[in-house]
Amino acid sequence: MALLSKEQLRLMLSENLEKHAAYKAKGLKLDMSRGKPSVSQLDLCGDMLVNVSEESGVKSGDGTDTRNYGMPEGLPEIKNLFARILELPAENVLVGGNSSLNLMFDVFAQAMSVGMPGCEPWAKQGKIKFICPVPGYDRHFSVCEYFGIEMINVEMTPNGPDMDAVEKLAADGSVKGMWCVPKYSNPDGCVYSDETVRRIASLKPAAKDFRVFWDNAYCMHDLYDTSEPLLPIFKACLEAGNPEMVIQFASTSKISFAGAGVSAVAAGDENIRHIKKRLFIQTIGHDKINQLRHARRFPDIDVVKAHMKRHAAIIRPKFELLYGLFTREFGGNGLISWTEPKGGYFMSVDVMEGCAKRVAGLCADAGVVLTPAGATYPYGKDPRDRNIRIAPTVPPIEELEQAAEIFCVAVKIASAEKLLGR
Amino acid sequence: MALLSKEQLRLMLSENLEKHAAYKAKGLKLDMSRGKPSVSQLDLCGDMLVNVSEESGVKSGDGTDTRNYGMPEGLPEIKNLFARILELPAENVLVGGNSSLNLMFDVFAQAMSVGMPGCEPWAKQGKIKFICPVPGYDRHFSVCEYFGIEMINVEMTPNGPDMDAVEKLAADGSVKGMWCVPKYSNPDGCVYSDETVRRIASLKPAAKDFRVFWDNAYCMHDLYDTSEPLLPIFKACLEAGNPEMVIQFASTSKISFAGAGVSAVAAGDENIRHIKKRLFIQTIGHDKINQLRHARRFPDIDVVKAHMKRHAAIIRPKFELLYGLFTREFGGNGLISWTEPKGGYFMSVDVMEGCAKRVAGLCADAGVVLTPAGATYPYGKDPRDRNIRIAPTVPPIEELEQAAEIFCVAVKIASAEKLLGR
Repeated sequence: MALLSKEQLRLMLSENLEKHAAYKAKGLKLDMSRGKPSVSQLDLCGDMLVNVSEESGVKSGDGTDTRNYGMPEGLPEIKNLFARILELPAENVLVGGNSSLNLMFDVFAQAMSVGMPGCEPWAKQGKIKFICPVPGYDRHFSVCEYFGIEMINVEMTPNGPDMDAVEKLAADGSVKGMWCVPKYSNPDGCVYSDETVRRIASLKPAAKDFRVFWDNAYCMHDLYDTSEPLLPIFKACLEAGNPEMVIQFASTSKISFAGAGVSAVAAGDENIRHIKKRLFIQTIGHDKINQLRHARRFPDIDVVKAHMKRHAAIIRPKFELLYGLFTREFGGNGLISWTEPKGGYFMSVDVMEGCAKRVAGLCADAGVVLTPAGATYPYGKDPRDRNIRIAPTVPPIEELEQAAEIFCVAVKIASAEKLLGR
Repeated sequence: MALLSKEQLRLMLSENLEKHAAYKAKGLKLDMSRGKPSVSQLDLCGDMLVNVSEESGVKSGDGTDTRNYGMPEGLPEIKNLFARILELPAENVLVGGNSSLNLMFDVFAQAMSVGMPGCEPWAKQGKIKFICPVPGYDRHFSVCEYFGIEMINVEMTPNGPDMDAVEKLAADGSVKGMWCVPKYSNPDGCVYSDETVRRIASLKPAAKDFRVFWDNAYCMHDLYDTSEPLLPIFKACLEAGNPEMVIQFASTSKISFAGAGVSAVAAGDENIRHIKKRLFIQTIGHDKINQLRHARRFPDIDVVKAHMKRHAAIIRPKFELLYGLFTREFGGNGLISWTEPKGGYFMSVDVMEGCAKRVAGLCADAGVVLTPAGATYPYGKDPRDRNIRIAPTVPPIEELEQAAEIFCVAVKIASAEKLLGR
């Protein structure tokens, strides 16, 4: 910031206000707000819509008629697939419906109303708290808020959450757990380091009913041929003698169909037994026909890996467009800092303190929808009003380019205003 | 019973023990335990497996790409269909996943952890109770048991639950609601009379958070061309000035696919607002591709009605086989009483007091699985050990005939034993 003179700032402001007015006049409608796949990504699984039919048969490998009731744990094929993806035994996996968020919510609901194994219901324990690495995923925070659980911010680092802070907080018995998106974290795209994973697996929280919610949403979602390695948490937990510390979640929402994938929850024996107790009361079974569609389309993890390269080919250029543009526009001038994730669905931009809402507002005026400023923090409150999540996957690349340019214009206006004290 | 002499009873016992031994030797494996559709019923919707494809398109009527995230309330087409089925406005309907049981469980879970609108969570209110008409549905009772809610039996009559008893119980503020299967009730197949529906709609319970769970699972499931009329509860509630008294549930599980249908919850404005608050946190949306499959296969209620006649044609002979057999075997001898439902998936048999477990045991010995004796009562405890639920839909008709004959043999043995004091 020191690099720009007042003169330069005034020029930057006037130039970009002019550009902003021109964009505004165009009446654009562009969206970089949500981590959704684009139409061409959804088209990759068109064949899956009809791969279970009267002709191809409706039975799973073990002879189960997938159309009828039953099998609340899920088809063996899908349990095995998630076991490979999450690197744990298939008996530690339960298959869900189309939404892993729903599985997370249900584990919270279970903890609230009947408690974690052998513990009092959270609803009866008075004020309880949850650790939320920030910036993080707004829907995670909404779950805590819905149940009246107080959220405590912990800063993300390039290696994952600040573990010194986490370990300190976990020593408080009213702290009941932590949210994690360990790979290509939402929104900053970081991958937890081996040390972070080991420290999480080795936590010795005061509360017996403390659980880490390990939302491995992007475990297969590399943008490049080489995957950023993530230490398997289940093994780390076993090694630390902490098999029930972590509950994992994953889904095919960004592998097959965002609205019609299959999800899974995976955890230690005791947690799984506990979750099963609820599951078997809650439903006679999730949609097995859809599980069979997935089993046929993705018979093993290698097919998933090959498939994810096709997704990457569609969305990598979108990410790289942003990385390149930001480097050209802001490289070295210090107005913003940003992450360049090698996978996932988001990148995170920190603008100058106190400028995020202004940037989002300017973008909105010019027809560009961003995730609301503040959404990456609990209660929607970014204490420094500086973080913005960018979701580049939905718009076609020409629209993304225009939206990103408008974003840059907005950042320059807001920064100049701030630096000029206006 | 008085009609049979000791001599006749001894003869009945020896004859039937002989028959039982013969059946036992055959090593049969027959199942009359669960209310599942048969394979030929599932085949009725074979076309639905592939009616959403790249060729036919993946968009709903309003242009929504059903493959992507969003629309937690469900497609308008499906909301409208359930609105017609349950006879209320579409804005009072929310579409769920494949399981209406899951929707019921979730409303309980919500009441437990955050409370009904404007009320304390049930989990914080100490001992609470629920009214359970008996005989009833074991999975309903399991939900109450899971959440630690005490169940109170109320006798079913041919017109529905004994409303004098219900009204008396509702005057206790710790009583929070009641289970109902108003049409072709599980297991006795009764249809609630207009007076019963009106009295339920007009309840003035002491607890503000008292709710009737109206599981209209068999609302379209007539065995004959003429439907047994059920007064629409929503209208009755409005007329009684009690719009939030009842929460309704329905699904296509026994219309399309038992394991891959669509479900719905419907209720008054305040209840729906409250449920939406949870739903929007719990998931980004249920499976809309499957909703679109249903919308195309069942564009309106008349298509559903015509389709249900094809189901009826398959299962009616199974029910009539039982009605005929029981009349021939037991008509007038007073050993059992049974219901002859005109719809639904079950019939209910009352054997002599203290004989149900013995009958089920004898059946099991001869290879016939019945719903466990007692399952139609809370906690699996039939206080008179006399009720047995029969589910005739799964077995092919020849197998059903054999299973039913074994059942008759078992009843005769158990009855003779009891009457002879053995």
